[in-house]
Amino acid sequence: MNPNFIHTYLSVDCVVFGFDFENKLNILLVQRHVEDIPVEQQKKLPGSLIYSNEDVDDAANRVLLELTGIKKMVLKQFKCFADPNRASNQNDIRWMGEEYKHNIDRIITVAYLSLCRIDHKINSTKYDTVDWHPIDKVPQLPFDHNKIIDESLIEIRKWIDSDFSIIFVLLPKKFTIRQLYQLYNALSEKKIDIKNFHKKISSFSYIIPLDEIETNVSHRAARYYKFDPKIYKKTQNKLIK
Amino acid sequence: MNPNFIHTYLSVDCVVFGFDFENKLNILLVQRHVEDIPVEQQKKLPGSLIYSNEDVDDAANRVLLELTGIKKMVLKQFKCFADPNRASNQNDIRWMGEEYKHNIDRIITVAYLSLCRIDHKINSTKYDTVDWHPIDKVPQLPFDHNKIIDESLIEIRKWIDSDFSIIFVLLPKKFTIRQLYQLYNALSEKKIDIKNFHKKISSFSYIIPLDEIETNVSHRAARYYKFDPKIYKKTQNKLIK
Repeated sequence: MNPNFIHTYLSVDCVVFGFDFENKLNILLVQRHVEDIPVEQQKKLPGSLIYSNEDVDDAANRVLLELTGIKKMVLKQFKCFADPNRASNQNDIRWMGEEYKHNIDRIITVAYLSLCRIDHKINSTKYDTVDWHPIDKVPQLPFDHNKIIDESLIEIRKWIDSDFSIIFVLLPKKFTIRQLYQLYNALSEKKIDIKNFHKKISSFSYIIPLDEIETNVSHRAARYYKFDPKIYKKTQNKLIK
Repeated sequence: MNPNFIHTYLSVDCVVFGFDFENKLNILLVQRHVEDIPVEQQKKLPGSLIYSNEDVDDAANRVLLELTGIKKMVLKQFKCFADPNRASNQNDIRWMGEEYKHNIDRIITVAYLSLCRIDHKINSTKYDTVDWHPIDKVPQLPFDHNKIIDESLIEIRKWIDSDFSIIFVLLPKKFTIRQLYQLYNALSEKKIDIKNFHKKISSFSYIIPLDEIETNVSHRAARYYKFDPKIYKKTQNKLIK
């Protein structure tokens, strides 16, 4: 055997997006434990080595279930991260030694995107601490987790670009156009004027107005809408838009 | 160490698309050699185990260079295939034993898309035989290579959907609208009427008419066009189209 061919561990890491009430994208981070390192410096992305009988999608589903207690979360594999130096930091090697009872100095990870309504109850069976962090206030993380998060932002934009329906996973079942607009603005690189946005949205037959308006609000009460996945599906499948 | 965590080999496999003069998508296959198995049953996707000092993108670039002799081919990672049984066929295990001088019974692969003009000269430094195969006449291949090809078709559609400019990599520098239409039809799931296609295309400022028409053709000579990547870039970056 050519000794130069890699023989290695493989993990999955999950970037779970939520959208908060201050109009910011958030992601879920968990706590790891390494001796002599302050707790606040020990956040990481949820993830796991994969088992020998697992496919990577199964491993990602397992990580999400252990993380949130929610079955069948929306999931999308987006990239394999395999930089030979991604697990070479001494603190990371120490943590892997404690976590997996083994010396590991290279590990390749397959990164996944997922989405979760931010007010959904989190019931982790694996982690003591699971917290939402605004995407613009993510601390320094171990391995290449900051890089994975940076790339996940580009990927979630592409995902919504190719399938606009997944934006509704982050909104309540009934939502106002302002809520949709704010989420869209948080995701988009380019700002869009609210009037143009209204005009555009009103041309989408899959966004259905309800006979219900907001109550107990200080501004003018807005109408609620819902998303219709069946109508959406019929409008898709075009290469040229 | 939990013995159930995978410790494995990792490879890359590349699906290289071309477009032929009979209006069909083609892919590049190579020849492997396993004793007692007829040559025509030994086609496979080009690929390689990755080296211990390589990132997966580097490995894919190496595979493409060894395959075609072309530097800097367009490249897109699209999926990690990790079915625990994907390398369990006895012929595949025998071939890996001969190729890598080692018993390997599980291998995880990261699949890449690439594009190549079909009339480009192929100068492989690694393979004796490199051939274009029409996508609808791909033979039975080893491992899960047929599955990888099936999924690559979905991915190339998504790729063009998210970045229409890459379609021009498959066309000559100057092309007719009929050529673009035929390629588009080969890629799209839905057929589009040629008149509507003309109308749509004429609204794209990045497709520039040239002062040149076809010569030596039996049908009415058509105008040539070229693609302008700078104008294309300016028209992009919208989440809602």
